[in-house]
This record gives sequence, C-alpha cells and structure tokens, in this order.
Amino acid sequence: MKLLIIGSGAAGSTAAQFARKADMKAEITVLGDEHYSEYSKCGLPYVFGGIIPDFEELIEFSPAWFQRFKIDLQLKRDVYDIDTEKKIVKARSVQGDDEQEYSYDALIIATGARSWVPEIKGAYDEKGKLKKGVFTLRSMDDAKQIMDWAGKSKRGMIAGSGLVGMEMAEALARMGMDTYVRLRTHMLTGMIDEDMAGIVQKSAEAEGIHFIPRVTVSEIRGGDVMEGVVLKNLDTGEETEYPMDLLIISAGSRARIEVAEKAGCKIGTTGGIVIDKKGQTSVKDIYAAGDCTEYPDIVTGKPCLIGLGSIGVKQGRVASVNAVGGDEEMPRGILNNRTTELFNLEVAAVGPTINELKKAGITPVLGKAKGSTVPPYYPGGKEINVKVMINPEDGKIIAAQIVGEQEVHQRVNVFAIAILQGMTVKDFLQLETCYAPPAAPTFDCMTLAVDAAAMRMRRMKA
Amino acid sequence: MKLLIIGSGAAGSTAAQFARKADMKAEITVLGDEHYSEYSKCGLPYVFGGIIPDFEELIEFSPAWFQRFKIDLQLKRDVYDIDTEKKIVKARSVQGDDEQEYSYDALIIATGARSWVPEIKGAYDEKGKLKKGVFTLRSMDDAKQIMDWAGKSKRGMIAGSGLVGMEMAEALARMGMDTYVRLRTHMLTGMIDEDMAGIVQKSAEAEGIHFIPRVTVSEIRGGDVMEGVVLKNLDTGEETEYPMDLLIISAGSRARIEVAEKAGCKIGTTGGIVIDKKGQTSVKDIYAAGDCTEYPDIVTGKPCLIGLGSIGVKQGRVASVNAVGGDEEMPRGILNNRTTELFNLEVAAVGPTINELKKAGITPVLGKAKGSTVPPYYPGGKEINVKVMINPEDGKIIAAQIVGEQEVHQRVNVFAIAILQGMTVKDFLQLETCYAPPAAPTFDCMTLAVDAAAMRMRRMKA
Repeated sequence: MKLLIIGSGAAGSTAAQFARKADMKAEITVLGDEHYSEYSKCGLPYVFGGIIPDFEELIEFSPAWFQRFKIDLQLKRDVYDIDTEKKIVKARSVQGDDEQEYSYDALIIATGARSWVPEIKGAYDEKGKLKKGVFTLRSMDDAKQIMDWAGKSKRGMIAGSGLVGMEMAEALARMGMDTYVRLRTHMLTGMIDEDMAGIVQKSAEAEGIHFIPRVTVSEIRGGDVMEGVVLKNLDTGEETEYPMDLLIISAGSRARIEVAEKAGCKIGTTGGIVIDKKGQTSVKDIYAAGDCTEYPDIVTGKPCLIGLGSIGVKQGRVASVNAVGGDEEMPRGILNNRTTELFNLEVAAVGPTINELKKAGITPVLGKAKGSTVPPYYPGGKEINVKVMINPEDGKIIAAQIVGEQEVHQRVNVFAIAILQGMTVKDFLQLETCYAPPAAPTFDCMTLAVDAAAMRMRRMKA
Repeated sequence: MKLLIIGSGAAGSTAAQFARKADMKAEITVLGDEHYSEYSKCGLPYVFGGIIPDFEELIEFSPAWFQRFKIDLQLKRDVYDIDTEKKIVKARSVQGDDEQEYSYDALIIATGARSWVPEIKGAYDEKGKLKKGVFTLRSMDDAKQIMDWAGKSKRGMIAGSGLVGMEMAEALARMGMDTYVRLRTHMLTGMIDEDMAGIVQKSAEAEGIHFIPRVTVSEIRGGDVMEGVVLKNLDTGEETEYPMDLLIISAGSRARIEVAEKAGCKIGTTGGIVIDKKGQTSVKDIYAAGDCTEYPDIVTGKPCLIGLGSIGVKQGRVASVNAVGGDEEMPRGILNNRTTELFNLEVAAVGPTINELKKAGITPVLGKAKGSTVPPYYPGGKEINVKVMINPEDGKIIAAQIVGEQEVHQRVNVFAIAILQGMTVKDFLQLETCYAPPAAPTFDCMTLAVDAAAMRMRRMKA
C-alpha cells in the first residue's frame, strides 16, 4: 500500500499520522513545498511581540517525528501534474530542477490555500511583486518578512478585519506600533455579527487600535517602498492618504486547487475541491483534506470553504484512514466552530452568522443574554455576552456567538454539540449546567440566552 | 390563585420568582424557618478565609426583592401540619408561639435537607447537643458558629471528605489551621472515582492538608468541650487519638420530609419526596422541589436525592410555573452535573461514578486522556485529565469526570449534553471542538478521551 500525500501542512501531516496508526506497513510519502516541516499557521501572530518566543517553536511535526514513524517527508517539492491512469504524481524542486515521479495506490491532496489580494492601484512594483512594506500573511516566510520589516516600522495598517487581520492588529500593537484597521462594515464579519463585534471593537479601541470605518483601500503610494495608503470612503467616495510604514493585506484566502484540477477532481462553487463523507474527491483513489476543500455547512447545507485547523486535521484523519482501507466518516456538515482571543476578550462562535443565515433564507429568532462567569456574591466575576439564533420553523438552535473575558471557549462547544444534535430550544432547556460559586451561576448565561429566545418564540406564536 | 411555598431556600425562592413571572396576579406567600432571607448555602465555605468578605453577601433574594415583586415572605415560621382537605397549612413561630394558618390553592414543599450525624460515642453533651468544638455545616447559623470557634482553633479535622467536607478543609487551611481529613476510601466518593480523586488529594497534600486513610471516627473525647478525636483503622481496628480544637462532621444530609409526610405525600426509597415531571407529589395540588425530593438518575433510572443548587432552582421553576397553571417539564432524569474548585484544581463530573454504575449492573468501558488547555507551542498550558465512561451495550456516553487547573467547568457541560442526548462514542467524535492557539488544541482532550474509549471498544469486539 503506497499512500502519497501532497501538502505537509496540518491536514497533510495529520493524515500521515493517522494513516500510520491505521496501517503500520503502508509506504507513506508526504510532499511539501515549503522548507519547513509542519508548523502551526494559526500560531504565527503570537510570535509578534514575543508571546511565543521563536518561529521554530511552531513546528508540531518535526522531521524527526516523520523519521520515527517511517514516513518519507520530502520538502521543497513542487507538484505540477498527476497522471491518474498510471497513478503517478510529478514534482520538481521548488528551484525548478530535480524532477521526480511518485507512484501511489491512494493519494491525498492537502494543498491548502493562499492569500488573496484584491486589485489595488500601486500595490505591486515593476517586477510584479508586492511593494516593500506591503505584505500578506499565510506562511512562516511571510511572517518572518513582516517581522523584519516591522522592526523598523512605527505605523502599521491592516487592510482586512477578519480573524487573522485582527490577530495581526493586536500583534502590531503588542510590538508598540501605532496600528490602524480599515473596516468596511464591522470587524470579524465572517465570525460574528455587528452587535457582538461592537463589544470587541470597544476593547480594541481601549488598547489604542485606530479603526477607520466604511472605507476600502484605493491606492498604495510610493515607489519600490510603500509610503502611504489611500483609503476611499464607501459612502462619500472621499479619499484620504495615510502615511504608513507597514501594510498587511488580510483579505481572505483562496483554495489551492491547480493540482486537483489537473487530476480532474470536481471543484465546487466556492472554489474548493468537492469531497464526500469519506474524504474522497470525484476521482477514484484521490482524497482531499483541509483548506483546499469545501464541505456543506451543517445548518444551511451550502458548501463552505474550510479555513479552520480543527476541521483540516479532522478531514486529514478521516481521509487517510479511509485511504489505507479503514472506515471513518466526517460529520454530516461543518459546524464552523471558531474561537480566538483578542484585546483581553475571548471571542467564539459556531454556526452561520446572521448575514449567512439570511442569505440562506432563514431569519432566525434571537436570544441574547449578558451573564457573569460566577454568581453575583462571588468575587472576580467577568461579563459574558451570549447570542443564540433559532430557526423559527422547527425551534432548532442553529448558531451561537459568545464574547467575554473568560470561560467563553468551552461554552461555544456546548452550543456546537447542541447544533450537531439538532437540539431545539426545549431540548436545550433540559440541560443541567454545572454550578458552584467559584465556577458558574445556577442559571448559566447560555440558559438565559436560550430562555430569551424561547420567550420570543412564544410571543411570536401568541 | 393562592400559591403557598414552604421553604425560603434556593428552590423555594426561585419558585416564587418564576411563579411571579408566570402570573402577575397570584397571591404568593413564602414561609421560611430561618431568620435570613434566601442565601447561597454553597457559598458558605468561601466566607472562611475571606474570599467572600461577609456572610451577608451571600443573600441572593433579599426581603426588598420579595417586597418589590409583591411576594409575602414570612421568616422564622415553623410549619407543623397540613390539612389537604381544607387546603390549609399550619405554622407557628420558631419560638413556638404565634400560631397561624395559611390557605392555598397550590402548595410547593421546598423544605430542603438537614445534616446527618452518624452515631459517634461522646459526640453529644448532657443536654443532647453536639459538644462545643463539634459542628455540622448546613445553614448560615452553623457557619457563623464555626467561624466564631475557628478563631480560637489551631487544629481542625473534617470527618467526611465529600464536596462540602473538602471545601471546608480548604477553608480551614486558608484560615491558617492545621487541617486533618479522615478518609474511608478516597475523597469526593459521591463525585469522582478513586483515580481522579488521587490527583486532587496530591494537590491538597501539597497545600498542607493531612489525610488519614482508612479510618472512621470512633469517639469524641472531652467534657462539654471536645478535646480529641479517636480514629479507628478500618482494617486493623487500631485506635488513635488526635488532639483537636475543631471537628466538622460532614457526613452528608437527609431530606426534610416531615411536613410532606403529614400531607400524605409519597416518600421514595432514598428518603426524598417523590415527584413527577411537572414537579407534582402524589397529593393533588402539592408540588415539591429541591433537596427534599428525589428524582430518577438519567443513566441508571434509579432515584437519587437532589443535593445540587442548580437542580433545586430548576425544579423550583418548573413546579411553580405548573402550580400557577403554566406548562413546563423537568428533564427526564438527573444528569447530576457537578463541579467545584479545590486546591488550585477545577473538579467536575457528570453522570454516575463507576461504583454507582457497577451497583446498577453496568461495567463501563473507560476512556482516559491527559491533555492541555492549549497546543504545546503556546505558553501557559495547563494539564487537563479527562475520563469518560461508555455503556458497552450501546456505545453511549454515560459519565465523565474532569480534573485540571483551568477550563474544566464548561467541558463537563459538553459531556452533560452528550449524556442528555444519549450520544454514542461515534456521535461524539463528529463534534468539531473550537480551536485557536490561546484557546484549545485542534484535538481537544475531550475528543482524545472519547477516542481512547472507542479504541478499547474496538479491541473488545475484536
């Protein structure tokens, strides 16, 4: 059994790990195009300002680990073609020489994603590269380049206020930089709704972050080196130039599917590789996992691009176990259970945002509650804001968002399991939550939010 | 509509609160036998050593709150009879004078529980009262008496190592007392198994607590004032006297059911009042809620005594809403979702202990995992120990126990939902847990524990 894995990121390396667990004898080869062994991309922002002391700390699966488990890790390999008849993958070194062919019985494509850069006047130099001082962040090399440049920068801007953008805004501020974030609508649009984002923005502003609302980047000024960023107001069209030393364009990513396309794998509407519950693509013996794939959202049923490490590793595991002849299944849909910590707040959400729900034709019933981590009489309680969204058709919990200083992350897992199980408001209110004075109140903020939704639903019926 | 509630504790007062929400016009009367308005009994240990600065802080429903919601709170009333024909409750003041009758349309019995004291030679003085220096802890008055005595005590012992016993052991240590705990088997027997308790014991010992294993209290020495405690070894029968200034007997509690018995309410095998899903007793228009009731365990189906504030308030709510003509239901069984913090550890569990399961004829498959709060590359991670128990018959998750320094409480709620929903190991492994470097690893310790159980089950089948 020859298992070949294209991509040495989280999904690819985890695939190798679980393939080895499932089959001690398989010949497993992993081809990566970076010069690092697998590392945590999500950890990159935390090296800025020294929370994590060094980039090398981010390496999770070291070359020694691959050796120990007899997995052939080949780095700096650039796959350029697949012959699905002969079951051969063709690669060359990233320098362009040293061609090689790899045969396989089963293939897993885990090529990940790349940063997307919208069209911006003046973004590139004459050689077609981003101007000096302008960056995207996806890889460790990206991060190292930003780090070098940040050392001589005093003012930094993030164009994009998604998860990575906001983590980098906090990172630049942590390094002492005067930090600007351009907003179109609200921050973290893919993660939380406007009301919840407002809480996080307030906290970010208290930490000195400057938000510039309702703008888009219209031009990057300067020669080889960026000197300023021109922002255009979305309502008035007015343009303003901000002198700036560093700009990170954080406008999302696109699945890397060139190799999969050459193999004839079906590509979905989101631009990701289509896979089934077993992790199989439309081509026999070819599986795919991680950020290069799309999968149905568990609530709306609509395909969504995978952009979370937690899903990538799960997909890698399922695909690899099946690839070596085992039997595992992915969940019937993506919960999109996501969290982070920003500006002294924990932020977490699961299920679609309200805008995504409305696009899918669902106008949810909302339940909101402001609770505390502990009962009022116990000292040190921290505020927790909970918002749940209910499908008015069947009373099922379909989304939740939580923002607070503590004890947020695991509460979102409670809602995740509720959504996974298709629990209704009534089902959820049967839950006994744990209680102790130093731990949680008798009526948890989750219960209060679902209660609020139940009351709204009763009023709607009345 | 006249609603009468006997008992002004958490269940009774919460019943009054939700009755008022459900019926703005009802005449609601609450009879309490203490001289305090409702306070958190669970908070009492935290006043020792000043985590909570004053006993008065524990009051949750103040007399002013009752007034504001037009609920007639009558304290220091001792109910001694119920005429279910005439629907009249007879009470006198706790001093024994001032008789009064209260008519009702619906009655809620929320009389709680009292401390139980096993037979111990020399425990009582000539008047039949516990010797000076010997205490139980249930009420605020109990706690105040302990506090007065503790001020002049240097050595304290806890006879009983349950939840309250261990919280008081930590409380005495916090006050600077040399603290002894007598163990029969392991600490927290009603809460967690021996392996998990071992982790907590190690942490308690590191904080200076002395555990005396395999003993029972055979005698309390001294005259009016206790001078020493004699412990008898359960294996050898050997007796040893420990000079001691303070002894807290924390041997559990018994439901207070005298009033319910007089009304003819059915009492169950555990000694608690039997209630149905609506909170109704066997007697028409009489409901019961909280620590004086029993209810089926959701896993074993066997009745268990309610001893948790979180369940008491939920029962109070359901009983009162139904009593005033509404429609709410209790869960189909008790999850017994319980937590605390002890000696720098968070301890939480849900579902029966392994001994309780074995008594019910279930030998569970175990899954254990030691994880961390964050990925290995992120600083400050804390160890989390997770144990799950699976019914080998159907693969369902039936219990979980978690011990760790952080992020324990809410994880037990995730397992609580899994048990409530009857989720199998396979169902649970579909759960996407939230992940971010400062928040949680990609594969959560909960997933790892369930994975370990799944592997054991596969091996058992093979």
